[in-house]
Amino acid sequence: MGKTEKIAKLKKKLAKVTAELEAARSHTHKVAPLAPPGGFPALPRIDGVRFAAVSAGVRYPGRTDVMLALLDPGTSVAGVFTRSATRSAPVLDCQEKIGGDASGGAAIIVNSGNSNAFTGASGQKAVAAITAEVARVTGVPQARVFSSSTGVIGEPLPFERITAKLDELNAALSPDGIAGAARAIMTTDTFPKGAGAEVMIDGAPVRIAGIAKGSGMIAPDMATMLVYIFTDAKIAKAELQAMLGDLTDRTFNNITVDSDTSTSDTLLLAATGASGVSVDGNAAFRDALHGVMLDLAHQVVRDGEGATKFVEVRVSGAASDADARTHAMAIANSPLVKTAIAGEDPNWGRIVMAIGKSGAAADRDRLTIRFGDILVAENGWVSPDYREELGAGYMKNAELVIAVDLGLGDGTATVWTCDLTHGYIQINADYRS
Amino acid sequence: MGKTEKIAKLKKKLAKVTAELEAARSHTHKVAPLAPPGGFPALPRIDGVRFAAVSAGVRYPGRTDVMLALLDPGTSVAGVFTRSATRSAPVLDCQEKIGGDASGGAAIIVNSGNSNAFTGASGQKAVAAITAEVARVTGVPQARVFSSSTGVIGEPLPFERITAKLDELNAALSPDGIAGAARAIMTTDTFPKGAGAEVMIDGAPVRIAGIAKGSGMIAPDMATMLVYIFTDAKIAKAELQAMLGDLTDRTFNNITVDSDTSTSDTLLLAATGASGVSVDGNAAFRDALHGVMLDLAHQVVRDGEGATKFVEVRVSGAASDADARTHAMAIANSPLVKTAIAGEDPNWGRIVMAIGKSGAAADRDRLTIRFGDILVAENGWVSPDYREELGAGYMKNAELVIAVDLGLGDGTATVWTCDLTHGYIQINADYRS
Repeated sequence: MGKTEKIAKLKKKLAKVTAELEAARSHTHKVAPLAPPGGFPALPRIDGVRFAAVSAGVRYPGRTDVMLALLDPGTSVAGVFTRSATRSAPVLDCQEKIGGDASGGAAIIVNSGNSNAFTGASGQKAVAAITAEVARVTGVPQARVFSSSTGVIGEPLPFERITAKLDELNAALSPDGIAGAARAIMTTDTFPKGAGAEVMIDGAPVRIAGIAKGSGMIAPDMATMLVYIFTDAKIAKAELQAMLGDLTDRTFNNITVDSDTSTSDTLLLAATGASGVSVDGNAAFRDALHGVMLDLAHQVVRDGEGATKFVEVRVSGAASDADARTHAMAIANSPLVKTAIAGEDPNWGRIVMAIGKSGAAADRDRLTIRFGDILVAENGWVSPDYREELGAGYMKNAELVIAVDLGLGDGTATVWTCDLTHGYIQINADYRS
Repeated sequence: MGKTEKIAKLKKKLAKVTAELEAARSHTHKVAPLAPPGGFPALPRIDGVRFAAVSAGVRYPGRTDVMLALLDPGTSVAGVFTRSATRSAPVLDCQEKIGGDASGGAAIIVNSGNSNAFTGASGQKAVAAITAEVARVTGVPQARVFSSSTGVIGEPLPFERITAKLDELNAALSPDGIAGAARAIMTTDTFPKGAGAEVMIDGAPVRIAGIAKGSGMIAPDMATMLVYIFTDAKIAKAELQAMLGDLTDRTFNNITVDSDTSTSDTLLLAATGASGVSVDGNAAFRDALHGVMLDLAHQVVRDGEGATKFVEVRVSGAASDADARTHAMAIANSPLVKTAIAGEDPNWGRIVMAIGKSGAAADRDRLTIRFGDILVAENGWVSPDYREELGAGYMKNAELVIAVDLGLGDGTATVWTCDLTHGYIQINADYRS
């Protein structure tokens, strides 16, 4: 081989190895492999609410990072929030304001890039400044301006960058702006999250549209991440709040990416009433809202940091529903279960381990474990019909169901999680530095 | 540049990139970077106990995987065990036997490679077969033969491979065999773990020597991993058991690698009495035993799967000791805190998050956080004197102290953990497959 050939060959090999190294190190800022196909969904327009998004340069250059939603007078707003003992200034402010008088309309202002959490007195000052300016610009009472912030913890929020953009935001408000709003609230998310529904009630359509952000620090307690859901239904404030709390326990409170709970988790649900259709006590509306919330919750898991597998953990036969949830969460949060899933290893022994450590009642000899429809373990041991190839083949799927029956009672729970991969380490070992 | 030069340069670059790629992909089966320097320590010889190790081929080829320790008549044996609801057959058998009559001597038989956990009736049969054969070969009553197994969960233990080696083991017993025993019980451990002490009591020496294994599935509950400690002290059985339980709560129960609790955690403490020195109520002996247990517990953390940082989390000023431990464990188990440490990112916001989610009492505005001696946060915000460079510089150390004061009461706790790295994912995404 001549020298020229040798150079060409070495160059080719170098390019290949360099590409492999880059892949091994890459941050995978591309869209998560579990993202719903087809991109952001077409959401129904909700009369009574308008949206705008803008680039304020809070932290991220070259992208939108502030959204404003303006709600017509008469809109009921319900909310659930993190129970973290170190919750952020905007969460504390929202909690004070929720349930107030609906006659003057309402506004929701959200920034990404900085969570305004653990920022002491300066955090409260920033919330006061932002909500006062939103009130001035939009004409909504300050007591009805809800704010959220998401991003890095402990750095002062440069609120003047946000207030400087409020006139621009107000001028850009549009009933079709929800997709832009969903994009503006992203942090480590790799895709914007939206879900909607339209349901006929008494012959008239009622619409629901929601957006969410969240990818890491996901183990919601009470509410979750940032979620905003809008409907043109007419519904009493108290019923809206009760329905939201109940459905949150069946959706967002049953997902976990990494067992870590955000200081900023906020879920706001606004009912403008513009459809003129009353949905008090209506099961179809409740089901539709449940569906939208579950869809958004699943999208958060699908965008879990570094996730390559979407996992449903179903627990039945527990002594109580609470015990079932404890077992399900122990499985869903176990680093050893999550890494086994990442490695496509049907390591059901780690599921037994997680059940054993959870603290909830379990009897080793009454446990049944299934991967999808495959019976894996029963009577305190591996099932006689189980073959490792069956489990290994199943684990290659991107969507997995792990079903555990305790054989003790009627308690059930279903939670959703993702695997734990190199991607999670890469994203979080240098998110801030 | 000539072609020859160019070829040389390309070759050099290719070698460098290839090495980096290999490093990025490597399993790092080499000794953990946090291993104590100097290798396995010189441990004092404990009169009344002899050790042997053998290669039985339970799972791993080409290494020792079974150890036997034979204890003279009159030896008191105390033990603490996992509280897992799915604990293994050998753990259940040990729990039944602990506290029995000490007159006939005792034996401890341990294999690595297979944990004999979740193996149903076959698991009990294996334990019965092994302990019966050990009794026959050594002359110790079967009720005094304690067995442990560590390794993969849910596969039948090929116990005949172990019983076939018992004559060989018995013949090889030696008072100096403890280092070989420490090696035989390793699984994903990268170094054998030992610690010892010699303390003068009433002018006579009393000796303690202990060994441990453990690297992943480490969040002990009650006892931990596999730990065997031997002393020639004379001590009443009940006092030995009480002391062991109390010291376990201050050592092994305060370490965590990954928040997952083993089905096989076992800690046995044997006092042969051969020194003739009574240590009932002796503080110096208790302190020496505490030191040996803490040393072994720290070695388990230092060998935490993929660990590159050894982290002490000190919590003070909590409403109670229990609250302090809850906060400390929330910090030590948080994937976001652990990945930040891996990335040498002084991300104290994630510590605030972990305190907030723990469920124990906290007041955001009374928190103080320190990295070593560096005051990071106080009064609900970053300290005015804190500079990011200070924190970033500190995080480069391999041994870190994170100190949190809640400002609420007198409760304190200290726990030890390690960081969460690519190494953990690599080891656990294909441990079994």
